[in-house]
Amino acid sequence: MSVLIVGTIALDSIKTPFGEKSEILGGSGVYASVAASFFAPTALIGPVGRDFPAAHMEFLRSRQIDLSALHRLDGPTFRWGGYYEYDMNQAHTVETKLNVLSQFDPIVPEPLRSTPFVFLANVDPVLQLKVIDQLKGTKLLVADTMNFWIESRRDALHEIVKKVDFMVLNDGEIRQFMETPNIPLAARRLLELGCKGVIVKKGEHGALVFTARGCFSAPSFPQEQLRDPTGAGDSFGGAFIGHLARTGSVSDANIRQAVILGSVMASFNIEDFSLDRMKTLKTKEIHDRFEAVRKSAEFAALGG
Amino acid sequence: MSVLIVGTIALDSIKTPFGEKSEILGGSGVYASVAASFFAPTALIGPVGRDFPAAHMEFLRSRQIDLSALHRLDGPTFRWGGYYEYDMNQAHTVETKLNVLSQFDPIVPEPLRSTPFVFLANVDPVLQLKVIDQLKGTKLLVADTMNFWIESRRDALHEIVKKVDFMVLNDGEIRQFMETPNIPLAARRLLELGCKGVIVKKGEHGALVFTARGCFSAPSFPQEQLRDPTGAGDSFGGAFIGHLARTGSVSDANIRQAVILGSVMASFNIEDFSLDRMKTLKTKEIHDRFEAVRKSAEFAALGG
Repeated sequence: MSVLIVGTIALDSIKTPFGEKSEILGGSGVYASVAASFFAPTALIGPVGRDFPAAHMEFLRSRQIDLSALHRLDGPTFRWGGYYEYDMNQAHTVETKLNVLSQFDPIVPEPLRSTPFVFLANVDPVLQLKVIDQLKGTKLLVADTMNFWIESRRDALHEIVKKVDFMVLNDGEIRQFMETPNIPLAARRLLELGCKGVIVKKGEHGALVFTARGCFSAPSFPQEQLRDPTGAGDSFGGAFIGHLARTGSVSDANIRQAVILGSVMASFNIEDFSLDRMKTLKTKEIHDRFEAVRKSAEFAALGG
Repeated sequence: MSVLIVGTIALDSIKTPFGEKSEILGGSGVYASVAASFFAPTALIGPVGRDFPAAHMEFLRSRQIDLSALHRLDGPTFRWGGYYEYDMNQAHTVETKLNVLSQFDPIVPEPLRSTPFVFLANVDPVLQLKVIDQLKGTKLLVADTMNFWIESRRDALHEIVKKVDFMVLNDGEIRQFMETPNIPLAARRLLELGCKGVIVKKGEHGALVFTARGCFSAPSFPQEQLRDPTGAGDSFGGAFIGHLARTGSVSDANIRQAVILGSVMASFNIEDFSLDRMKTLKTKEIHDRFEAVRKSAEFAALGG
C-alpha cells in the first residue's frame, strides 16, 4: 500500500562539531518521504520556492517519490539555519526564513485523498488539520509536531490528537505538552485526551509506544557515527509508516517492527549531513542493522 | 553461590517532590546488599557508628544478610542529606558528614575473601583497591563509582577498571570519565583501557552492556510511581550480582537477565523512600515485573 506525507521542504544551513554546511536539502517532509520510500510507494506534499535546486528534485525523483502534488509557490524556499553543540541532543535555531512556507495552504489532490497510510510530518497543526479534513478512508494516520507548536498551537494539537492513530513526539515534547517529567505518566495523559497511540522518540535511548493495549520499549542502535542529527525524528516517522504500508497491516507485531525500523533509519540518517547517507543506503544494510538491534536486545524469560 | 558487598551504610535526610524524610536508612552497601539478598546469600562490609539504630540492624538481619564483618567504629554513622527537583534525575547534595566513613579501612575476614561474587558498591576507589588486594579466587568482580571519585580519584579508577569484570556507571558518569557525550564511544574507550565489561545505567532509559563480544540494550520498566530515586543504582548493582550468584554462571544469557533484574529491582526501590518498598517486596512481584519488561520489549525478526 502507499504512503502520503505532508511536511516541509527546506534548504538548511547547519553547523555541528563535525562540520558546517549551507543550503543543504532538508525539511520534515523531505526526510520523512525519503525514509518512507525505502519501504513503500510514497507521495510528498509540501511547498517549494522557485529557487529549489533541480538536483534536489532529481534526488527525490530517484527515490521514486511522487512529487505531482508539490506546491510550487512564488518566492524563495523555506530556510532553516541552526547548530548543535557537543552533546548534539538539542538543535539551536539561528535563523528561520519561512518564505513560501508562510503561503502554504495544503491541497490534497483527489487521487491522493484516499491514500491508506498518511504521515503528517512537522508543520503548523492548523495546516495538519486542513489536511485531515481532506482525507478519506485513511487506514493509518500519524502526526508529528514540535516544541514551537506545543507552545503556540495547543488548541489545534488537542484537536489533532483525537483524530490520529499515533501521535509521534520526542521525550522533551511530550513532557512539555503533558506538563510532567514522567514519560509513562505523560503518555497516559495523552491517551486520556483521546489519542489512540503515542510514540515517544528518545533519540539514542530508543523509543516507547503506548496504546490502550500496553507499552513497547524499543532499543536503539548504539551509534558512534553521529555527524548531523537533523531529520532523525522525521526519518523515524517516515520509516515507521513506510513499513506499515509495505506490510499493509497495523498489527501490534508490525507496529513494533516499524518502530525499530524507524529507529534504524534515524541511525543511518545521522551518519552524515542532509540526506547524504540515504543516497548510498541499501536495503540489505537496513535489514542487517535491524537484525543487529534485535540481537542486541534479546533476553530469555526467567526459568524456574 | 554467595555474594560479598562492600559499600557505605548511611543515615540519609532526603527531600523529593513527594515528601521529606530525615535520618532514614541508606548507603550504597545497604541498598546493594538488600537487593542482592533477594537472590543469593549476601554478606555486607561497611562502617557503622555507635548510633546506628538497632531497628535498621534488625531489618538487615531479616533479609538474612551476613553482618559479621561490619566495621563498628567509634563515632556517629555516615550522614548524607540531599534533595531532588521535579525531574528527579539528579541528586543535589546539601550536606555530607563522613563521620565513621572517614576512618573506614576495609578488612575482609578470611572466610569472606574467597566469596565468588563480589560487588564493590560506591566508596572511595582507594578503599575498593584495598578490598581487591584481599580477595582470592573471585569468580566475578563488579565495581560501581560516582562523579565525585571520577573528579578526585581518576588514577585509582584507572587501576580498578583493569581489575574488574564489570564497571558499573551511570550515563553521566561514563561521559564524564571518558570525556565524550557519546555513550557507545565512551564504553569502547573504557574497554580499551583494559576493562572487561562496562554497564551503563540510564535510569528510566534502561541500561547498556558493552563487552568485547558486543552490546546488550536493556529496556526499563515504564515506572509512573517514583517517590525517591535514592539507591536505584545500588539496587541495580546488588540485584545484578545477586542473580549471577544465584545461577552460578556468568554466561552472556545470564548477564542479560541479571541486567533486567537490576533494572526491575531499581524500579521497585524508587517507589518509596529508603528501603521501605523492599520491606514488602515478594519474589513473585519481581518475576512478574521481569516478565512485564520482557513482553514490553519483544519484537520479531523481519520476514522475507
